[in-house]
Amino acid sequence: MKNVAIGVDIGGTNTAIGVVDQEGNVMVKDNIATPGHGDIDRYITDLASAINELIKSVKLLNPDVEFLGIGIGAPNANYYKGTIEHTANLSFRGVVPFIDLLRKHFPDLEALALTNDANAAAIGEMIYGGAKGMKNFVMFTLGTGVGSGVVVNGDLVYGHDGFAGECGHTTLVPGGRLCGCGNRGHLEAYCSAPGMKRTAFELMVEYNATDSLLAGKSFNELDSKMIYEAAVQGDKIALEVFEKTGAWLGQGLANTVHHLSPEAIFLFGGPTASGDYIFNPIKKHMEEHLLSVFKNKIKILPSKLKPGDAAIVGASALVWKEMEK
Amino acid sequence: MKNVAIGVDIGGTNTAIGVVDQEGNVMVKDNIATPGHGDIDRYITDLASAINELIKSVKLLNPDVEFLGIGIGAPNANYYKGTIEHTANLSFRGVVPFIDLLRKHFPDLEALALTNDANAAAIGEMIYGGAKGMKNFVMFTLGTGVGSGVVVNGDLVYGHDGFAGECGHTTLVPGGRLCGCGNRGHLEAYCSAPGMKRTAFELMVEYNATDSLLAGKSFNELDSKMIYEAAVQGDKIALEVFEKTGAWLGQGLANTVHHLSPEAIFLFGGPTASGDYIFNPIKKHMEEHLLSVFKNKIKILPSKLKPGDAAIVGASALVWKEMEK
Repeated sequence: MKNVAIGVDIGGTNTAIGVVDQEGNVMVKDNIATPGHGDIDRYITDLASAINELIKSVKLLNPDVEFLGIGIGAPNANYYKGTIEHTANLSFRGVVPFIDLLRKHFPDLEALALTNDANAAAIGEMIYGGAKGMKNFVMFTLGTGVGSGVVVNGDLVYGHDGFAGECGHTTLVPGGRLCGCGNRGHLEAYCSAPGMKRTAFELMVEYNATDSLLAGKSFNELDSKMIYEAAVQGDKIALEVFEKTGAWLGQGLANTVHHLSPEAIFLFGGPTASGDYIFNPIKKHMEEHLLSVFKNKIKILPSKLKPGDAAIVGASALVWKEMEK
Repeated sequence: MKNVAIGVDIGGTNTAIGVVDQEGNVMVKDNIATPGHGDIDRYITDLASAINELIKSVKLLNPDVEFLGIGIGAPNANYYKGTIEHTANLSFRGVVPFIDLLRKHFPDLEALALTNDANAAAIGEMIYGGAKGMKNFVMFTLGTGVGSGVVVNGDLVYGHDGFAGECGHTTLVPGGRLCGCGNRGHLEAYCSAPGMKRTAFELMVEYNATDSLLAGKSFNELDSKMIYEAAVQGDKIALEVFEKTGAWLGQGLANTVHHLSPEAIFLFGGPTASGDYIFNPIKKHMEEHLLSVFKNKIKILPSKLKPGDAAIVGASALVWKEMEK
C-alpha cells in the first residue's frame, strides 16, 4: 500500500494538477484552463473530472495506491474557511466556498485543504525540501509578486483571519514605488521579478546608461533572467540591480527576523536562479540590519523544491500536514 | 488552598519582586538594587533572600497559600536557555545561566522561567489582561525603548533562538534616525518616549516654533507627558508629534499585521496614556498601509495591565503559562 496526495495549483490562466508521492515525486500531472468555465460550479466540476481521470490513470498502473486527499494552492485562499476571497486574478468573484464545493465531488477523501501559494510552498519545503526537521523558518516566493509563508513551532502561521504571511506587502520605502496592491513602497514593488526590471530602468535613467547590455530591451521585454545574464558579463547596471535588490530584500528579511527569530529563510522563484549574484548582497545587507543577538545566525537558503513542479508539490504537501493532526 | 506566583522584573537600576495571585493582584512586593552586589552569584543569593522573605510574610497571613514558581522578566533574556545574554544595561556580563543559578535556591518550586520584559508583558496581557481568550495577538511596549511580544495559536513566539519579538528594531525609514542599537531608522528611534521627544525638537527646528508650549524645555527636560499636555492645550507642534508618531507606528504595525494577521495589537507604556491623541493617528495610518483583506479587522487596544505593577505581574504570568504545559 502506497499513500499519495493530489496537489492543485490555481493560477490566473492555468490550473495545474498532479499526483505526488510521499517523497515529493510527481507521478502524473495534467492541467485545465482557470477561466472560461462559465461559473464556479462548472469550474469545480471540470476540475473534479480532471482529478478523477488522474486518479484512474494512477490506479490502473498501481492498484495498491491510496489517495489521502487534495491540497490546493491559490491566491487569496483562506485556510480556516476553505474559501478563495475577492481575488482580482481569477474568474471567481466574491467569496467562493471552494472546499465545500469540492467536497461534494470527493466525499471519501480524508484531507481536503486550501491555502495560498506561498504558504503551500512553505509547507512543501517543510515536508519534502530543505526545511525538513526545521521548526521555525520563513519562505519567500519571488515571482510576479512576492509571497511568503511563516512557520512557527512546526506549524504554518495563519493568524486570526487566515491571511498571515503577506510579507511582500511590508513597507520598505515610505512613499516609494507603487505596488500592485495600490499602496506604495512595498517589498514586492522592489524585490519581485518586475521590481528588478523597474530597478534596471531606474538605474539606466539615473546614469543615462546607453552602453548597458540592457539598454536595447523595451520595458516589456526585459526580465530578471536577462539581468542575470548581463551581470555574468560584467554589466554595471545589471550588477547594481542585484546589489540594490539585495539591499532592499536584506532590509525586509531583517524585519522578518526581528519579528520571528527563524532558523532559516528560504527563497524560491525566478530571481533566485541568479545564485550568488542575488544571495550575497541579500546576506550582506540583512546582516547589516540585524541586532547583535541575530547576527551570523540566520541561514538564507535557496528552496529545494524543483521550479517546474513546486506549486503542485507544495499544494500536495498540505495533505501530509493535515494527516499529522 | 490558593495558588500564587512570584514575579521578578529586572531593570538596569532596580529589581522588583512581587507575589501575585491568579487574578493578577499583587499581594506583597519588595525590591533590591540590580547593581552593586559584587558578582552574579551574590546578586542571585540576595534576590533569593528577598524572595524568601516575601514567601515567609505571605505564609504568615495565609498558611494555605501554595507557591508554584518564579517568573522573571529581563532584557536580553533567553527563554529556551534560561540565560541573560550580553546585556548592556545590567551589571552581569557575558552569558548568565540565570535559571540554573536560581534553581539552586528553590529546588522545590515547580516552574522557574525567564523571558524578556515585553514577552512577559504579552503573557501578562493573555493571562490577566485584555487578551484573555485571544489566540493571536501582538504586544508593543512603548517606553525608553520599544519592545514587543508575539502570540500565535495561544503561545508566545520565541523563534529558533529564543529572541523573537524585537519589532522595535524593524526599519521604518531607511538611513533614518540613529537607534540605541547603533542601526538607523528603527521603529524604536521614532515611536519610543525619547523618539517622540526627538520628533518634537525636529518639528520645532523645522518651523522655528518659538511660540510652541514645548519651546521652553531643554532636550533633557522634555518628555512624552509634557507633549501630551501641550497637545490637550492645542499646541500645533505637540499635535503634529502625535500625528507623525502615529504615522510611523501605523506603518510599523501594518508590517506586523502583514507578517502575522493578529486579532489585536495591544499598546503598553507611557505614550499610550495620551489616549485618542496617539491611538487615532496610529489606527488611521495603519489602515492606510493594510492590504484590503486586513482592513477594519485589526483591533488596536490599550493594555489592561496596571502601569505600576505591570512588569511584576507580567513576569508572574510566565508561571501560569508554564503550568499549562
